Amino acid sequence: MVIDVHFTPLQVDEFSLRDRTIVVIDVLRAGTTIIVALSNGAKEIIPVATVESAVKISGNLFGDVILLGGERNGKMIEGFNLGNSPSEYTQERVRGKSIIFNTTNGSQALVKARYARELFVCGFVNISAAAKTLAENPRDFTVLCSGNNGAFSMEDSVCAGMLIDKVTSLGDTKYVLTDGSQAAHALYKKSGKNILKVVRTSDHGRHLSEIGFDEDLKMCAGVDTIPVVGCLDGNSIKVRREPEPKEVPLLPVTS
Amino acid sequence: MVIDVHFTPLQVDEFSLRDRTIVVIDVLRAGTTIIVALSNGAKEIIPVATVESAVKISGNLFGDVILLGGERNGKMIEGFNLGNSPSEYTQERVRGKSIIFNTTNGSQALVKARYARELFVCGFVNISAAAKTLAENPRDFTVLCSGNNGAFSMEDSVCAGMLIDKVTSLGDTKYVLTDGSQAAHALYKKSGKNILKVVRTSDHGRHLSEIGFDEDLKMCAGVDTIPVVGCLDGNSIKVRREPEPKEVPLLPVTS
Repeated sequence: MVIDVHFTPLQVDEFSLRDRTIVVIDVLRAGTTIIVALSNGAKEIIPVATVESAVKISGNLFGDVILLGGERNGKMIEGFNLGNSPSEYTQERVRGKSIIFNTTNGSQALVKARYARELFVCGFVNISAAAKTLAENPRDFTVLCSGNNGAFSMEDSVCAGMLIDKVTSLGDTKYVLTDGSQAAHALYKKSGKNILKVVRTSDHGRHLSEIGFDEDLKMCAGVDTIPVVGCLDGNSIKVRREPEPKEVPLLPVTS
Repeated sequence: MVIDVHFTPLQVDEFSLRDRTIVVIDVLRAGTTIIVALSNGAKEIIPVATVESAVKISGNLFGDVILLGGERNGKMIEGFNLGNSPSEYTQERVRGKSIIFNTTNGSQALVKARYARELFVCGFVNISAAAKTLAENPRDFTVLCSGNNGAFSMEDSVCAGMLIDKVTSLGDTKYVLTDGSQAAHALYKKSGKNILKVVRTSDHGRHLSEIGFDEDLKMCAGVDTIPVVGCLDGNSIKVRREPEPKEVPLLPVTS
């Protein structure tokens, strides 16, 4: 089994991700926000590549069941209902709603991975739940970090490294790590003991602090605070339901 | 002063590199081969993006002063004079020649950085010479790793980290490291003591070993074996000449 990591979505084309198992990571903040929204009862998150797509798709749906969420330069997009702070995605706001979601980094990565065979959304908040899902049914998988405006992001890479550490520690499966996954794992081993520090000192973390989102950093740095796995289901991200247990055929009594 | 690192050329567009100081790294093998060729008296290396460009440009030049060099899948391109093994670029073959050069990773990065204000080629073989050139005249710079077929490559990243370590240790200039340059530096600190091991265990190093180029790995892993700096001069890479010392005006004798 091979684990690979891409540090930005720009370095891959969507066809190389087709039919693979992909884990999308965007710690600050889209990935975390999606997990919070699903945990708070959102029906689904529909990632789109552009603001224009978001507006177009929302025009075809009933206004009382959909919301538009996302950001540009960290701030809410004009005409949208929600920004990209996980704290905005409360039960009161999102329960039962379909959220059309457009952000600078995370939703771009999700759109690029749309032809995956299966796609999971992972952040620090749900990392053990994501690792458990991957380890239960061992397979090759690719981690796609959303990065920071096309550049490498430390918080996503350390999160990828922590995920690899957890998956490879569960069960007996032997995994081969590529250069990318070895690098992510090494970065996690070096600095992963203090996740809040990793998040706060990262390029994007410092930017978010400067524009007033320091509280978001604490929420995004929480490890295993939300044991929910989000996965692609058609064109949207939904809570992964545990597969139904297989019916075990009764064996004939032989004695 | 800010140092940034991109781990693949795919993640950047050429306009974001325009008018910047760029260091291109391709340890295995184009960067090393270029430094060896220049050290052995090649007049210049002309990087091109495609085999077709290489053939087209060569058609306009006199055959006795130009050579075609490069590789696809690690092996010499049909009709070319040289592959991408540094050991092929001997004094006897390259002295005085212009070499049109097309490889999978390195020449792609060089072409992408062609609008740089200044561009240096760096490998382990000339790393202290490159670091000294950068530190002598402190400035922001971006390291562009050539990567491995669009993916992260460990040997280029560790080389970037070693370069950063050397530049920041020379002189009193304070540098700001981005997420990318911090990651490269951490990877160098973790594994940079045994460069041959880094090169041999990397994805691309293992591939080259398998197809018979293990001797190249030793040459590419040599640290400071060739104190030559290659830099962009017009459309080609040439040996950087030390700037002429400025003429100091004679002061009038006052006593």
